[in-house]
Amino acid sequence: MSLTGKHILSSDLFDRGELERLFELADVLTPVARGRQVTRILEGAVMASLFFEASTRTRLSCEAAFMRLGGGVTTTTGAEIMSIAKGESLADTSRVVSGYCDLIVMRHPEEAAVHEFAAATNIPVINGGNGAGEHPTQALLDMFALHREFTRTGVTLDGRRIALVGDLRHGRTVHSLMRLVTLYEDLTIVCVAPEPLGMPVHLLELAESRGHTVELSDQPEIGLKDADLVYATRLQTERFADRPMPYSDAFRIDKALVSRVCREDAVIMHPLPRDGRPGSNDLATDLNDDPRLAVFRQTDAGIPMRMALFSSVLGVADAVPDSLRPAAWYRPDYTGPHDAPFYKNIAT
Amino acid sequence: MSLTGKHILSSDLFDRGELERLFELADVLTPVARGRQVTRILEGAVMASLFFEASTRTRLSCEAAFMRLGGGVTTTTGAEIMSIAKGESLADTSRVVSGYCDLIVMRHPEEAAVHEFAAATNIPVINGGNGAGEHPTQALLDMFALHREFTRTGVTLDGRRIALVGDLRHGRTVHSLMRLVTLYEDLTIVCVAPEPLGMPVHLLELAESRGHTVELSDQPEIGLKDADLVYATRLQTERFADRPMPYSDAFRIDKALVSRVCREDAVIMHPLPRDGRPGSNDLATDLNDDPRLAVFRQTDAGIPMRMALFSSVLGVADAVPDSLRPAAWYRPDYTGPHDAPFYKNIAT
Amino acid sequence: MSLTGKHILSSDLFDRGELERLFELADVLTPVARGRQVTRILEGAVMASLFFEASTRTRLSCEAAFMRLGGGVTTTTGAEIMSIAKGESLADTSRVVSGYCDLIVMRHPEEAAVHEFAAATNIPVINGGNGAGEHPTQALLDMFALHREFTRTGVTLDGRRIALVGDLRHGRTVHSLMRLVTLYEDLTIVCVAPEPLGMPVHLLELAESRGHTVELSDQPEIGLKDADLVYATRLQTERFADRPMPYSDAFRIDKALVSRVCREDAVIMHPLPRDGRPGSNDLATDLNDDPRLAVFRQTDAGIPMRMALFSSVLGVADAVPDSLRPAAWYRPDYTGPHDAPFYKNIAT
Repeated sequence: MSLTGKHILSSDLFDRGELERLFELADVLTPVARGRQVTRILEGAVMASLFFEASTRTRLSCEAAFMRLGGGVTTTTGAEIMSIAKGESLADTSRVVSGYCDLIVMRHPEEAAVHEFAAATNIPVINGGNGAGEHPTQALLDMFALHREFTRTGVTLDGRRIALVGDLRHGRTVHSLMRLVTLYEDLTIVCVAPEPLGMPVHLLELAESRGHTVELSDQPEIGLKDADLVYATRLQTERFADRPMPYSDAFRIDKALVSRVCREDAVIMHPLPRDGRPGSNDLATDLNDDPRLAVFRQTDAGIPMRMALFSSVLGVADAVPDSLRPAAWYRPDYTGPHDAPFYKNIAT
Repeated sequence: MSLTGKHILSSDLFDRGELERLFELADVLTPVARGRQVTRILEGAVMASLFFEASTRTRLSCEAAFMRLGGGVTTTTGAEIMSIAKGESLADTSRVVSGYCDLIVMRHPEEAAVHEFAAATNIPVINGGNGAGEHPTQALLDMFALHREFTRTGVTLDGRRIALVGDLRHGRTVHSLMRLVTLYEDLTIVCVAPEPLGMPVHLLELAESRGHTVELSDQPEIGLKDADLVYATRLQTERFADRPMPYSDAFRIDKALVSRVCREDAVIMHPLPRDGRPGSNDLATDLNDDPRLAVFRQTDAGIPMRMALFSSVLGVADAVPDSLRPAAWYRPDYTGPHDAPFYKNIAT
Repeated sequence: MSLTGKHILSSDLFDRGELERLFELADVLTPVARGRQVTRILEGAVMASLFFEASTRTRLSCEAAFMRLGGGVTTTTGAEIMSIAKGESLADTSRVVSGYCDLIVMRHPEEAAVHEFAAATNIPVINGGNGAGEHPTQALLDMFALHREFTRTGVTLDGRRIALVGDLRHGRTVHSLMRLVTLYEDLTIVCVAPEPLGMPVHLLELAESRGHTVELSDQPEIGLKDADLVYATRLQTERFADRPMPYSDAFRIDKALVSRVCREDAVIMHPLPRDGRPGSNDLATDLNDDPRLAVFRQTDAGIPMRMALFSSVLGVADAVPDSLRPAAWYRPDYTGPHDAPFYKNIAT
């Protein structure tokens, strides 16, 4: 399958072969993402960045990735685009903007909007998040980060024990991850959540139908044990405003818990943002200097993965390697003060 | 007349010769607009995009056009720019921003603002819409689209029958069009509007003074007959909130009406956005697969025309042809799913 | 000292030697800032422009400067970034965005925020204004403008008489200027302010400890006399809403006052924006055609100075001169209609 010219609306689009081709390209592009090399492969191309709903993180990452490839970006966000489109169909907006650009990245609060948008244009549309639906570029960057975490020691993801923790019912990120991670083989997937916030049954069934072992737990103290990967998400206390919370603060993943129950070589991920305030049932910031915490390596993976996706969709993937040249400006060896313990083990 | 260094505040600036020079340049730049060729003629130049009033459409089109020429764009919109300029004169804002850039595109809700702005700087200011005033780049793209529609079959606009339909009293777009289209010869211009929303008399007189025939009608069923061009605009029902509407829903231009009364080779245009909701008195979306509907070809014309204008104002028009090189990325043959029936007839 | 890789949070970072190296580089880059030359020294680099608080002026100037160096810019402002960061620590936001870019320019309403931000990343952070704190790039551009004003006639700033006028208590701009201007020698600094709005004592002491003469006055009519430089700032009437204003309108610096008391070759500066409305106690617009008014030369100085700073921080300063090539597009000889009387004396 070639991705050239495709809309990227769902993570269902990818099989393992396609994932691995994207990982290879993202590896080649990592020095560009880190400001060590330059490519101008998309010089002259224009991306339209249409965020009907605010999302600084995804938007900035996609825009930076497209610019790193040499392209230009024109942006509109939130209130502005919503107000002036009064009465205009999404199909018209889509077709009009398509005349301005070569690629569209959009986010919209309504799940159906991105599909209406894509149906009205031949220009590739990348789903940057559609309501409670999908967020395929986040799923891809999560998989690329996972792939890097496990291959750095010469092994693969196959056969690993994976703990998914937190609100597994409402998170589109963890749902997309379930679809992609189960493309690997022989996993044990431990879903760790308070009972009312468990993983949807159809996703558990998907995992089992692909030959994986599924376990359920409502206690992190038990569920995180022996996991190679802990993928944490936030428990949103406010969902239970008027009722007693159906869980204790055991779902706070902090230094104490990790020290007690996690493997020495575990990998801890989280899609971010995490609630760093005291008392939040989320991944705690006291883990920042623990090399097992992979959340910043994970977010960093978004740039090379999105570059890989954009260059594949625009049909220039094969030409990327020959387009690279050294960058001349200063870039620190490590992006953040806590990066070193991990990166010392791999080539950057 | 050379456009180099000129402010572009009104469509009155252009005569037919200047229009045709811009059309020629826009033709040369069309492959760049469509992602088939690349130019970097304005590499290093900076455009300031100052939208004191929101306008995603015009803003994104201007920004994409400038980036397609190789330049960079810095943008500010709406609330942000208005709040911090508290107490500062427009003249100061203009002169300050002029020190940052080589070209300013601005939109402002007050008609006089763009003139104050232009008076305070030697950097070219492009009017992106000033209240009820003018919108010259929209008028230019309309004319370029018209020119392309009529010349694709080897004829020109001269001698044609043109129906302008809808609210002809309040639309700055259709007023600017009147000024430019009457630079051609021997037209029959049919103004089709409910009586209270008719074309201003001074524009009717302008058309007659330039030797054209003017006809008035308040019935689309009659007014659209035999027209080579139908230029539709929205009837804003809300203007008559408390009174009975002075017209029927005959002003809905839909498939049924077009089938009954329009020529087989008519061209149907509209400045967009159009109100696509049921019951709107506007151009209907059920015409989308009718090749006579030129609205997307029309909006697409904005990129090459704005590129032609910017490169003329910045004095690089003559150097454009030698600056072109092929683009390497994927771009669909047709931007939208309904484009093909028209484009099969002409070189893209 | 090398600026490569440094955070630029305070103007205290600079000594006179560093200032003069930046002036030299800014001189080299002035033709790029004025659209006469092009450099692509930062082609492929990305700047993140994070304005938690609106600031069109500083933001557009920084973005244009980075683009003039060849880099790309991704931007977020105000409401958008503040709302989605709910619960996330500034440290997380900083580290995440650092994975997207090579340089961060940020403004934040809270003084401590920029320090938290910088502590969480190795990517250089430029303070674009932190509440009542500092605004070092404004201080640098002020100093570069001052340097240019005085060296154009072959002399330096040393030994000059400088009048600082207006609200000297609350303005971070004038505080930063005090820190930098006192790096020069043998100045007479006249602080002209109503008594309750005087310069903070520790800054007066700083000036005296560096060997300068300090004088105080509450009457512009006297304080401006014989000054080589008049640096005006706005008196904010609204601070005294419920009390009688502790000063007359003598603090309006207009043509009449300047004609009466200022030297023929005085230089009049102001950080802008100025309140141009009738009755404001600010620098008046009736001075616009007086060549002593340096405010637009001052704001223009922001582009080359910010280019000099960015290229120094990113370690490419030495490579700048060889990277220059001529620009081909139109650029007026003078940016504003009142520029000529000054610029006729110096090479542009």
